[in-house]
Amino acid sequence: MSIIDIKNSVRNIPDYPKPGIQFKDITTAMRQPEIFKEIIDLLAAHFRERKIDYVVGIDARGFIFGGALAYKLGCGFVPVRKPGKLPADTIAEEYALEYGTDKLEIHKDALKAGDRVVIVDDLVAVGGTAGAAGNLVQKLGATIDSFAFVIELTELGGREKLQNTAEVYSLVRF
Amino acid sequence: MSIIDIKNSVRNIPDYPKPGIQFKDITTAMRQPEIFKEIIDLLAAHFRERKIDYVVGIDARGFIFGGALAYKLGCGFVPVRKPGKLPADTIAEEYALEYGTDKLEIHKDALKAGDRVVIVDDLVAVGGTAGAAGNLVQKLGATIDSFAFVIELTELGGREKLQNTAEVYSLVRF
Repeated sequence: MSIIDIKNSVRNIPDYPKPGIQFKDITTAMRQPEIFKEIIDLLAAHFRERKIDYVVGIDARGFIFGGALAYKLGCGFVPVRKPGKLPADTIAEEYALEYGTDKLEIHKDALKAGDRVVIVDDLVAVGGTAGAAGNLVQKLGATIDSFAFVIELTELGGREKLQNTAEVYSLVRF
Repeated sequence: MSIIDIKNSVRNIPDYPKPGIQFKDITTAMRQPEIFKEIIDLLAAHFRERKIDYVVGIDARGFIFGGALAYKLGCGFVPVRKPGKLPADTIAEEYALEYGTDKLEIHKDALKAGDRVVIVDDLVAVGGTAGAAGNLVQKLGATIDSFAFVIELTELGGREKLQNTAEVYSLVRF
């Protein structure tokens, strides 16, 4: 198992969700036991020596990798969710889409000052979603150690947008 | 750490999402490292000796526990998702809600005959969602070893609905 194996396990779906887009389907990676294990082991190895308190996973594919990473690191898991999904008091952050805006929420009591977190999603493109998650974490007074992604679409500028806030770590680049 | 500790870590949210409902908020369980670890270790211990090929996680909280369980068991992870979220060819299953219906999808090539799976969600109430996920798994020819939940709301009949199909395993009962 290597980074190349992980990269080769991602399926390309042409013209999804619309003509001209090459969608990276990560479900073909996570369904292979050795690939899924390697992804989590590589992420965990990178963060093992840091004092991470929480893995913050982004709704919904970030939950799959983030949940496994939190388990492996022995951290707590904190979800950042689409609006209306978290039952207790939340704060929200809007972010821009290609057309219009979207919103993410976090429980107000999910993190506190001094907590150190890794924000996890399956993929980073322009970095809007991860950036909004990062703003939520910082609004609660916690510290972002890093943003971690399985896949980075390098031409879309996510790294440049996020790296002023914290380290950006990705396993596979397209 | 014990089952009682896990049960006590679940937060009750009164009158959510509507008056009279006591919502079980599992985010307060997963954010505690020892509790999250104990949940996954107990689930993994239960399924360790069986020949499980895939953990099938239900969108979205089932992804958090299912992802970690798949990692721990050394299985692949297969997502069952809300409509329009999976990019390749899917099959769908409708199921009844209190008012109206909802739908779940799975990739057609995610499972095949002979595959043995555990279907994971955070909570079972009436069992409609898990039942629909089970139907999707069976439509693809795979075998359901069990349904696994962190929380079971015992008075709502989920166990009775699901146990004709496969074993129902839950850690905490309210």
